[in-house]
Amino acid sequence: MNVLWVFAHPEQASLSGSLRDEGVQALVEAGHEVRMSDLYAMKWKAVVDRDDFPEETSPQLRVTTASRRAYEAGTLSADIRGEQEKLAWADLVVLQFPLWWYSMPAILKGWVDRVFVKGFAYGVTDPSDGRTLRYGEGTLAGKRALVVLTAGSQEPAFGPRGINGQLDLALFPLLHGTLWYTGMSILPPVAVYGADRVSAEDHAAAVSLVRSKVLSAEQDAPLPYRSQNGGDYDGDLVLRGSLAPGLSGLGVHYHPGA
Amino acid sequence: MNVLWVFAHPEQASLSGSLRDEGVQALVEAGHEVRMSDLYAMKWKAVVDRDDFPEETSPQLRVTTASRRAYEAGTLSADIRGEQEKLAWADLVVLQFPLWWYSMPAILKGWVDRVFVKGFAYGVTDPSDGRTLRYGEGTLAGKRALVVLTAGSQEPAFGPRGINGQLDLALFPLLHGTLWYTGMSILPPVAVYGADRVSAEDHAAAVSLVRSKVLSAEQDAPLPYRSQNGGDYDGDLVLRGSLAPGLSGLGVHYHPGA
Repeated sequence: MNVLWVFAHPEQASLSGSLRDEGVQALVEAGHEVRMSDLYAMKWKAVVDRDDFPEETSPQLRVTTASRRAYEAGTLSADIRGEQEKLAWADLVVLQFPLWWYSMPAILKGWVDRVFVKGFAYGVTDPSDGRTLRYGEGTLAGKRALVVLTAGSQEPAFGPRGINGQLDLALFPLLHGTLWYTGMSILPPVAVYGADRVSAEDHAAAVSLVRSKVLSAEQDAPLPYRSQNGGDYDGDLVLRGSLAPGLSGLGVHYHPGA
Repeated sequence: MNVLWVFAHPEQASLSGSLRDEGVQALVEAGHEVRMSDLYAMKWKAVVDRDDFPEETSPQLRVTTASRRAYEAGTLSADIRGEQEKLAWADLVVLQFPLWWYSMPAILKGWVDRVFVKGFAYGVTDPSDGRTLRYGEGTLAGKRALVVLTAGSQEPAFGPRGINGQLDLALFPLLHGTLWYTGMSILPPVAVYGADRVSAEDHAAAVSLVRSKVLSAEQDAPLPYRSQNGGDYDGDLVLRGSLAPGLSGLGVHYHPGA
């Protein structure tokens, strides 16, 4: 398979850097093709602004309108077009980052903000019936996404009742609100905990974890998110009362028992 | 009170820009002092890198170590020190942004990543007993934080069973994992929905909402998050079994019935 690996750590000689190298090596050894977007090494521009849309002439910048226009005209800035081309090529997208404030480092958020523009990653409709394709359907459907992260905390603090919030729920804006939104299938996130103090034994275990999870990414079961247009949500995009009756919270957006 | 207003929208002539102007005006009319960090206008650098720590000489960059050392030595880059000074001065911090991919635009995430360094915003202990001060206690305790955002979706999609996730839970990494983590008290977020298509009537309602919420920010009840060191969590930072028994999900980190 074709793998796009997006890496967002400022230091090559870090735990993250070594996990990336090991993960890539495992994929290449297994015959997969890997392309790398090393955002710090690329000096990736993190901030959406008018320079992303060099042909945009309207005095007031409306990001969604300007980005869609530029996407359709092929006039997005070259760095954005390059990432979109890699994404279109990929079967699996790996996003690897150190968890900073329980979300992505700004440089990676800025990769999402700038690359996932209207028309390319969202804002498309089914030509047959005009439905907006979103949350389980869309332009990036058929691809898989895998988040690999390092966190300073220990694992129990990210468990179902841990103070940081259960990991997949804390990552809901990325896993569900971004990646699933575009139609991709989302694998359970892979986390290396206690990343500030890693013994040689911990390091070997982390390498083994990352190697095995990238190699099984083609077969592993994705998170069982409900799709927007599968019948589970009403016209206001609210979960129907007959499903997960009486419950609320982010967990209701998973199919139960999957 | 002293208010720091952090604004993260690329276009001054936007709905967000007008809501900011109205909110600031309301505060000033009521006798409060307001300082503005308009991140796009300041050309705020979004990305943590070695330039943040000009005196750092170790060949391998460890962000937490380097940032703490630079903070304690007063050698963080001048833009970071400027924001820390404003934060120290503020009684209320307003973070205003358009919701992009269910979280902050990269420029604002980068404000958090770069300004909230170890020693300034976290990583401090109680001198009497060595406990880490975190989640409800810390260097920024006593301040209040208010998130004001605009979102393209309609309100039901952010409700308790809405597909985007209940707003305060989707914002958990920011509200709880960042702001509450530093010790601040967190007000319920203020959201203007359907922000892509706003009639004159909608605009007037949004202005009225923002004006009233910033004016009541001193008195409004904060979100009833559980504090880390208040007895609700065990030594692994897991909620004790006697509290919210049998439940999990992000909602268990609220005091019930508050």
